[in-house]
Amino acid sequence: MTTLIFGHKSPDTDSTGSAIIWAWYLNEVKGGDAEAVLLGEPNTEAAFVLRRWDLPKPRIISDVEPGQPVVIVDTNNPAELPEGINSADIQAIIDHHKLVGGLETAGPISITIRPLACTATIMHNLMGPNAAKMPDWVKGAMLSCILSDTLEFRSPTTTDQDRELAERLAAELGLDLAAYAAEMFAAKSDVSAFSDAELIRMDSKEYAVGETKFRVSVLETTAPEIPLDRKDSLMASMGDVAAEDGVDQVLLFVVDILREEATLLVPNALVKSVAEKSFGVAVSGDTVVLPGVMSRKKQIIPNLTV
Amino acid sequence: MTTLIFGHKSPDTDSTGSAIIWAWYLNEVKGGDAEAVLLGEPNTEAAFVLRRWDLPKPRIISDVEPGQPVVIVDTNNPAELPEGINSADIQAIIDHHKLVGGLETAGPISITIRPLACTATIMHNLMGPNAAKMPDWVKGAMLSCILSDTLEFRSPTTTDQDRELAERLAAELGLDLAAYAAEMFAAKSDVSAFSDAELIRMDSKEYAVGETKFRVSVLETTAPEIPLDRKDSLMASMGDVAAEDGVDQVLLFVVDILREEATLLVPNALVKSVAEKSFGVAVSGDTVVLPGVMSRKKQIIPNLTV
Repeated sequence: MTTLIFGHKSPDTDSTGSAIIWAWYLNEVKGGDAEAVLLGEPNTEAAFVLRRWDLPKPRIISDVEPGQPVVIVDTNNPAELPEGINSADIQAIIDHHKLVGGLETAGPISITIRPLACTATIMHNLMGPNAAKMPDWVKGAMLSCILSDTLEFRSPTTTDQDRELAERLAAELGLDLAAYAAEMFAAKSDVSAFSDAELIRMDSKEYAVGETKFRVSVLETTAPEIPLDRKDSLMASMGDVAAEDGVDQVLLFVVDILREEATLLVPNALVKSVAEKSFGVAVSGDTVVLPGVMSRKKQIIPNLTV
Repeated sequence: MTTLIFGHKSPDTDSTGSAIIWAWYLNEVKGGDAEAVLLGEPNTEAAFVLRRWDLPKPRIISDVEPGQPVVIVDTNNPAELPEGINSADIQAIIDHHKLVGGLETAGPISITIRPLACTATIMHNLMGPNAAKMPDWVKGAMLSCILSDTLEFRSPTTTDQDRELAERLAAELGLDLAAYAAEMFAAKSDVSAFSDAELIRMDSKEYAVGETKFRVSVLETTAPEIPLDRKDSLMASMGDVAAEDGVDQVLLFVVDILREEATLLVPNALVKSVAEKSFGVAVSGDTVVLPGVMSRKKQIIPNLTV
C-alpha cells in the first residue's frame, strides 16, 4: 500500500514542502512507494512555492483509513492530525516541535525530533550522502521550507545548521536568497482574499494555560497593514471562532517580518491582561506592539500567562 | 547543573549500559557535564557487565527534582520513569520501543527512536565518526547491550545493524563473541538469590488488553530449570504481586535462550485461555511451551488476546 506523507492541518511551506521532499526521498532514493498529501489547502506562501518550483500539488485528504501506512512530518500533535491517526500504521515521525504526547504506535518506529528551525533541515541530515542526489526542485522546496520557518533567519528558532544549509542550497541553485525570500513573504502577505475566520485559523495552534484554552494565531507578513486595516472586523469575529473551535479566546499576533516585531490585537480585558502579564508591556488601545517577538514556539507560547 | 542520564526502573544491560555510553559521549566528546544513574538495582547480567568492563557503578536515584536536566534512554514510557519526570527538563530521548504517549516536553528537544534491537546501536549511529573515539570499556558496554537485547542475535528484534556492529566491536576488542555472550547469559540466569516476587518483577512491563491489565514478565535464561523448579511457589505469589501492583494477572514467560522457546506458567483458567487464544496452543498442565517465542515486544505483546 502507498505510504501517505503529511504534515499538520494548516499546511504552510514547511508542512507542504517537507512532505514533498520526503516522498521524493522514499521513492527515488529508497525505492519505496510514497505520496505526499495535504490535510487542507496550502497557504498562499506554500501555494507560491508549489508554482515556483513546479512541484506536484499534493491531493488533499480528510482522514486516514485504519492500517494506512503514514509518515507524519512537522508535527507530533494528534489534534493537528486526522481523527483516525492512532489507528493508522504510523511508520515514522519527523518533526521539530515539542513532544505533546497523545500519539501512540503499535510497534517501535523511526522517530526523529530535533530542536532545529525546520523539518526539512532534519530531513537533509537524515539523508546523509544521499542528499547529493536531490534534483533542483527538491532543493528549491528545502530552501523554501527553511526560509519560511526561519523568516529568512530572523526568527530566534534559527540554528547555524538551518542557515548554512539554506545558504548552500541557494548557491547551488544560483538563487539570490534575499530576493527569493522577499517573493515568498510577499506571497504569504497576500491574504486579502481570506475571510476573517480564515485569517484567524490560517496559522494557529491551540494552547491551554491552566484552565484557559487559547487559539494562538500568527500572521507572518511583510505587509502588516493588510490585516491591521481590518482589525475591527477580525476582533469582532474572534468570539464566533472561539465558540466554534471550543476555546476561550483567540490571540492574534500580526508578525512584521521586516521590522521584527509582533502586533497583538486586544479585543477585551482578558487579552489586555494576558498581554501585560505575558510580555511585560502596558496596553492602552486595542493593539499592542511587542518588539522582537517573531516566534510562537520560542517567544509567545513559553511566556503565555493568564 | 549535571545532566542525569537514565533508563527504565528495571535496569537491565541495555538500560544500564546505554546510560553509561551516553554519559561518556556527552562528557568526553561533547564536553558536557553528564552522569549515568539508575532507577533501581541492576539485574545480575547488568551487574556482571559492570564488573567485567570495570564500569563505574551508577548511583541509584528514586526521583528527579523539577527542572533537573535529564536524558532518557531505552524507554519513552512515563510509567517506567520517576514520578516527577514531566516536570524535569527533558533534554533528549533515545529509545527503541513503541511510542506510548504521556511524556511531554517544555520545548522542542532531540528525540531519536529507531526500530533497532538495542538503544546502544542507535547511539553508535548518533555518534557518527566520533564513535571511533570510544575506549574499550565503552565498546564493551555497547557490545554487551547488543548481545543482551538480541539474545546473541536469536531474538526476532535483531537487525543487520545490531549484528554487524556487535561483530565489529567483538573483533576490535579481540573477544570471542559466543563465549562472552555465554558468560553474560550465565550471569543473567543466576537468579537463585531472588524471591519469587523479585523474579516476577525483574523484567516486567504492564500491558492492558481491553479492560484486563497484565504484568507481562520475562525471564531470559540459559538455565530454565532454575525458575521452573520453583514454579509452584512462583505461581502462588502471582496473586499478591498482581494485587500490590494494581494489575489483574501476572504472565510469567521463562525464555530459554539456547532452545529458543518460552515456557509460560499457567496458574489459572484466565492464563490458560489467554495462552490458547494468543499463541494457538492447547494447554493441559500448569505450563505450556511456546516454540520460537523469544521477544515480548515482537511476539508476546502484539499477540496477547483475552
